[in-house]
Amino acid sequence: MTDQPLLSNARSDRVKQVAALGRRAARDRQRRFLVEGPQAVRELLGYAAPAAEVLYVTESGAERHTELVDAARDAGVPARACTEQVLAAMAGTEHPQGVLAVARHVDVPLADALDAVGERGFAVVLTHVRDPGNAGTVLRGADAFGASAVLVSSASVDVYNPKVVRSTVGSIFHLPVSTGTPVPELLSACRARGIRLLAADGSGTTLLPDVDLAGPHAWVLGNEAWGLEPGVRDACDEVVAIPIQRAESLNLAMAATVCLHASGSTRRR
Amino acid sequence: MTDQPLLSNARSDRVKQVAALGRRAARDRQRRFLVEGPQAVRELLGYAAPAAEVLYVTESGAERHTELVDAARDAGVPARACTEQVLAAMAGTEHPQGVLAVARHVDVPLADALDAVGERGFAVVLTHVRDPGNAGTVLRGADAFGASAVLVSSASVDVYNPKVVRSTVGSIFHLPVSTGTPVPELLSACRARGIRLLAADGSGTTLLPDVDLAGPHAWVLGNEAWGLEPGVRDACDEVVAIPIQRAESLNLAMAATVCLHASGSTRRR
Repeated sequence: MTDQPLLSNARSDRVKQVAALGRRAARDRQRRFLVEGPQAVRELLGYAAPAAEVLYVTESGAERHTELVDAARDAGVPARACTEQVLAAMAGTEHPQGVLAVARHVDVPLADALDAVGERGFAVVLTHVRDPGNAGTVLRGADAFGASAVLVSSASVDVYNPKVVRSTVGSIFHLPVSTGTPVPELLSACRARGIRLLAADGSGTTLLPDVDLAGPHAWVLGNEAWGLEPGVRDACDEVVAIPIQRAESLNLAMAATVCLHASGSTRRR
Repeated sequence: MTDQPLLSNARSDRVKQVAALGRRAARDRQRRFLVEGPQAVRELLGYAAPAAEVLYVTESGAERHTELVDAARDAGVPARACTEQVLAAMAGTEHPQGVLAVARHVDVPLADALDAVGERGFAVVLTHVRDPGNAGTVLRGADAFGASAVLVSSASVDVYNPKVVRSTVGSIFHLPVSTGTPVPELLSACRARGIRLLAADGSGTTLLPDVDLAGPHAWVLGNEAWGLEPGVRDACDEVVAIPIQRAESLNLAMAATVCLHASGSTRRR
């Protein structure tokens, strides 16, 4: 911890500027976002420390998570002590558990994300995913099952939304994430690199076990309520359904989990 | 629709009695629960009509969902017209979309659920699942991938919680669900029937692709925050981990989805 004074004024300009990161307009303008809670901060410092700008900790947060204060110091990230009231005023979600960081955006250029897919990798494309929890779960699944990149279109939820960041549990720092490209350009760019586009859609005529997942491919996900846009579905190389017995359909996060697991399993063999 | 008068008094005893079903104590006492929204009501009337006691619909709900009013009539379930205010006062969740039913509990005796597993089936055991959305997703996955039964311990969330019912999207009516048995008895009962107990746990030493899923088995799920109780893990035949690359762990719903999908795939082959 630095010797700077305890931040105790919950209405200071600094607090307002951090709290503003709960809103997309401020995140886009500042190119910064909130990283809340010990687990997300740990992954930030472990995997993307150069993006970390400052760590805010309460007294009890610092006591419970001395390793985070140490990691910040080792990474040259200033740590500032603040009151519970200040941390609560800064936080975009309810329980930052005494620890909150401000970080610069960590997304990479689309070309870099596509480079990461290469000849053998796989990616996931979020075309119109709007629910923060779903986007976070998809990022987490991509990370868990070894995807090479996550491509988030400009029509999907902002990945720097505090709810997305929280629900990724750090995965957002583990693999290349590209953001802000319109859906058609995203699909064209994949195609130009020879990345096979697989639409995940219950209406698909190809069943998941019959798909060749050996080459570079990307799972293309639609909207949680209305699915894939017809134009997007038509632009994909295959429309793939997961064989199911009875339920009307799986939700988006479940379908993405199964598809990403299948791709990951192919690579483990 | 019946010729009975429009229910318009949001403070009537009837409305209070229905609204009370948002609370567990009243559900347990009355052995009834709320089924909210057109999709859940459709599945209730299609798969478990004998459990349906009454359908409440607003004018606009009846116009948008004439098929539900017809289905209720065909099943001998009385339909009562009510105002938006009355329906909102009855509902346990925010948007019943003009349609709400009251149903008797649909769970089956544990022995019946185990009979359904038989020689070839598989089940899922919720030991300490507390989040309604997770429980609903597990039920949905069990349904989608062809599980024979869902066994919910007395230490898990109440499956008749309106949030669980909503998030199952009707799956709760599609397959045998047993509730209310303490965890140790649940595990013993499975074992006595020759149902192999597979703990789903990131700490497992057996990897999912290496597990023999041909015979009768049950996936045993723990708590979303602290996982499986050590005693439960020890009581299982195998502790199974899903191979993952990078993320610290999958969340409970993701892990359950992958495990149930694996069991379902084995049976499709």
